[in-house]
Amino acid sequence: MAVTYFPSFEKLIEAFQHLPGIGRKTAVRLALFILEDDESSVEAFSEALLNAKRSIKRCRKCFNYCENELCPVCSDASRDKSIICVVEDSKAILSFDRVKEYRGVYHVLGGVISPMDGVGPEDLNIAELISRIKEDSVKEVIIATNPTVNGETTAMYITRLLKPMGIKISRLAYGIPVGGELEYADEMTLSRAIEGRREI
Amino acid sequence: MAVTYFPSFEKLIEAFQHLPGIGRKTAVRLALFILEDDESSVEAFSEALLNAKRSIKRCRKCFNYCENELCPVCSDASRDKSIICVVEDSKAILSFDRVKEYRGVYHVLGGVISPMDGVGPEDLNIAELISRIKEDSVKEVIIATNPTVNGETTAMYITRLLKPMGIKISRLAYGIPVGGELEYADEMTLSRAIEGRREI
Repeated sequence: MAVTYFPSFEKLIEAFQHLPGIGRKTAVRLALFILEDDESSVEAFSEALLNAKRSIKRCRKCFNYCENELCPVCSDASRDKSIICVVEDSKAILSFDRVKEYRGVYHVLGGVISPMDGVGPEDLNIAELISRIKEDSVKEVIIATNPTVNGETTAMYITRLLKPMGIKISRLAYGIPVGGELEYADEMTLSRAIEGRREI
Repeated sequence: MAVTYFPSFEKLIEAFQHLPGIGRKTAVRLALFILEDDESSVEAFSEALLNAKRSIKRCRKCFNYCENELCPVCSDASRDKSIICVVEDSKAILSFDRVKEYRGVYHVLGGVISPMDGVGPEDLNIAELISRIKEDSVKEVIIATNPTVNGETTAMYITRLLKPMGIKISRLAYGIPVGGELEYADEMTLSRAIEGRREI
């Protein structure tokens, strides 16, 4: 620690360093910015942190982050409640919601089945998904867990549970990303792209 | 704004976006991290922001940021008070302080002379530098303003003021950065490197 770093400044640097993807150098730069910023902006930032953290709840239907009983998606009358997209976490919903074509709702599992980490199906919001399907006369479930071993296992587990319910179950297509080059595609992606090929 | 971004979350994203070098995507990622972080960590972060901002003062000797009347450098008895390194802002001190060889003190100008922005010598801590030199029987002043037009102008202005005081005045050496390649050095840097060449 350089001698010019006084305690409250050092603490602020440490707080910034605690954030993902922010190293020491960036943390120092951000902390200096705070010292030079308007007091009102810094107060607003400090308050925004506490407010977001304290007002946060989980939607009682889909378990996405929200401020009220129901999240903005579940309480939106224009959303098609008969299609549920099942995701691992809220992060995935943020990505999905940029795709304007999707007008269905979501269901956050809160993780994936992972025997190594001691996470079983009972630790995820799977029972709640099943009762939702029954209550809301859901017609289709899109399983959008990540294409990892645990994501696939979880997708298979849920598929097996839902199959007897007679609804349509789909999985996101995997293949070459749009704009991607074949040269850089890994074997797994390529093998998935071949498996999922379509007649033209 | 996607429908899943509720107000307090959106406000937090905006607060992060206000920081330098942080775009929308990174801001969303950081805001999500805050939602998932421990409440105590978020409280500590929020407090660190306010504490650093509120406890900050300017050292009454060198104008560097500090918490007390004097900054850690000025109050350090082992520092050589007869050598002053004159810098534009506190950021420069943070860089300098990584160089263990420098055991002198600093003086923050609080900017550079910039006629375009209406900043004249009277807006900088130059008068304070002169009274410091007289009071502390300073022997050498190293002018370490940035190698920009305004930085050079300011360095020249200060040099002219201090010359009659009979002290040693030096300017940082400019040249090829250590580890840099000649191929990538710009003309200005190269011309400075030739100008400042040393016999070996």
